[in-house]
Amino acid sequence: MTALSREGAFWCVSVRTVFWDYDKNELKMIDQRRLPQSLEVVSFRDHFALADAIRDMVVRGAPAIGAAAGFGLALAAQGSKARAATELYVDLEEAASTLKAARPTAVNLVWAVDRILTRVSGYTGSPGDLRQKVLLEAQRIADEDVEINMRMARHGSALIEDGDTLIHHCNTGALATVDWGTALGVIRMAHEQGKRIHVLVDETRPRLQGSRLTAWELEQLGISYEIISDNMAGHFLHTGQVQRVLFGADRVAANGDVANKIGTYMLSLAAYDNGVPAYSVVPTSTIDLALAHGGLIPIEQRPQDEVLGIQYHGEQVAPEGAKARNPAFDVTPNRLITAFITENGVVYPPYDVNLPKVVKREP
Amino acid sequence: MTALSREGAFWCVSVRTVFWDYDKNELKMIDQRRLPQSLEVVSFRDHFALADAIRDMVVRGAPAIGAAAGFGLALAAQGSKARAATELYVDLEEAASTLKAARPTAVNLVWAVDRILTRVSGYTGSPGDLRQKVLLEAQRIADEDVEINMRMARHGSALIEDGDTLIHHCNTGALATVDWGTALGVIRMAHEQGKRIHVLVDETRPRLQGSRLTAWELEQLGISYEIISDNMAGHFLHTGQVQRVLFGADRVAANGDVANKIGTYMLSLAAYDNGVPAYSVVPTSTIDLALAHGGLIPIEQRPQDEVLGIQYHGEQVAPEGAKARNPAFDVTPNRLITAFITENGVVYPPYDVNLPKVVKREP
Repeated sequence: MTALSREGAFWCVSVRTVFWDYDKNELKMIDQRRLPQSLEVVSFRDHFALADAIRDMVVRGAPAIGAAAGFGLALAAQGSKARAATELYVDLEEAASTLKAARPTAVNLVWAVDRILTRVSGYTGSPGDLRQKVLLEAQRIADEDVEINMRMARHGSALIEDGDTLIHHCNTGALATVDWGTALGVIRMAHEQGKRIHVLVDETRPRLQGSRLTAWELEQLGISYEIISDNMAGHFLHTGQVQRVLFGADRVAANGDVANKIGTYMLSLAAYDNGVPAYSVVPTSTIDLALAHGGLIPIEQRPQDEVLGIQYHGEQVAPEGAKARNPAFDVTPNRLITAFITENGVVYPPYDVNLPKVVKREP
Repeated sequence: MTALSREGAFWCVSVRTVFWDYDKNELKMIDQRRLPQSLEVVSFRDHFALADAIRDMVVRGAPAIGAAAGFGLALAAQGSKARAATELYVDLEEAASTLKAARPTAVNLVWAVDRILTRVSGYTGSPGDLRQKVLLEAQRIADEDVEINMRMARHGSALIEDGDTLIHHCNTGALATVDWGTALGVIRMAHEQGKRIHVLVDETRPRLQGSRLTAWELEQLGISYEIISDNMAGHFLHTGQVQRVLFGADRVAANGDVANKIGTYMLSLAAYDNGVPAYSVVPTSTIDLALAHGGLIPIEQRPQDEVLGIQYHGEQVAPEGAKARNPAFDVTPNRLITAFITENGVVYPPYDVNLPKVVKREP
């Protein structure tokens, strides 16, 4: 992404959210907890620190987590003292479970790690070559992510009309992916096609990915927007001020039920109640055909202090001794989703029939 | 209310949210912007300062605003230099428009001010007696509010079952009224009747009346609760963890459409989608039979900085230059309201037929 520094001068470099530094042989990522106050890039040399960073949401967004976890296996391979490929593979399997355990809901993490393991499973060459193969596949996942996002953006932008006001939930932009973005990538493409659009940005409590990250990205891109608190979306939908609702997904079940950032269900419901289309923009790596329905998707429970106050911004808001619940995701039933926008095209119901048609699993 | 001081020792006095100090001839109110960090009582000697305080939400909650505005007329009467009752009445009318303009959505403000004006209109005695009459009527409104709340609480608590988990939006407790509360008053009564209940408290962005005020009241009352962000309510409803939803109202139209704190529409929609009853607990002074439907209720637009950051708690969260929208209320269509709980009984649909039956307008 092209980012404006805090001082206001353009950084004329294109920084990916997640990338491998080939000079230093380490993983680099934008620290998303620091935005929009400062743009900081942090480095990782082992997969344990990376797993912690995924848990702490230094990196977040299903596709970005997937790419980071892929590079995490490359870090594990690099750090392993194994002298044979089979031995190294055992270390990789161990690293894979550490990484997979970092966050349970998004399927891209599991998908990326499993894809690499499958690709190198049974390799009998030198451990050095195996290390190289792992990094190569991780890099391929990252590069494909950008390409896939561009394809989703082209499919999705055809659904956006000149003059549309859109509601967008959470952050699904360049920061949630390796680059470009999913739902926000669709919005960006429509903007670049010259369509005049306005985005109402759900602030997305409790971690405020909307007001911190999405607003920051839209500001960089020069796209018109206003922040709203999540509970306002219904008002704008009900008063006829919104033409379309867009969000990403962390996991889509075979029947089209969508696990996504908490609040997506209520937003989709309000869109549905007012006849406004709601689109989930997802790479096919987010579609988990192994799960029959959304009730089977594990929902991550995060620490209560995220709800009791505003993280990184001052003290607790709630009274001393207050307790909170903090499910990070919810499940939106398939009946509320107008269509999925994937890199292989737009998918309409019935989802149990049509989703498998666009999912081409590798290898 | 019986309040615990910051030091942890019980204040064994019963402090009303809004009350007239007869020693000093002034209005006193709890400054709700300071809670839960500190419990401060502020004094008012003129109605202009009071109108500002209503606008700034020193006092909030439709019934509390109504009572405060009633005393506001008493302040205006006291401050007026009029030498004849007719002259004083003109000053009262002027003060009434100042007070009514402070916040547009809640009808109780208009109701209380108009009630007093009607009661003293055409009075031909001494201005001193008229001043006394105004204060008396304002005090009557305040006292009635407490009594009305107790009656609503008794009607409503019959609908709450032992073991219920309830979702509650905004603050409707003692702090939103003169004392006791509307929706939270129902919950309190159920608790005092020995029913084991648990409250999921919507934090209620942007001003966090839930996590600041409702949590504080529940803490004082020893009622089990957990705070959630507003966008989580759907998740708990959808996963079968909630038996009832309760909130107040700022204005109810003749057809049962409800203007209430922003987010009520999405909450009611999620309750409806999962077959969970949603109750609006309102004194009949909140029911505006003059308005045919909710689309006619004026919706207050508040300053954007309430959304861009967390007021009273540190800096702006959003990037520099970000803009926000901030409608303070939304309209929930009557079809989503299971029943209204009023001081004159529980009202079920059809509301256009049944609401007028419970509204007995004074004088």
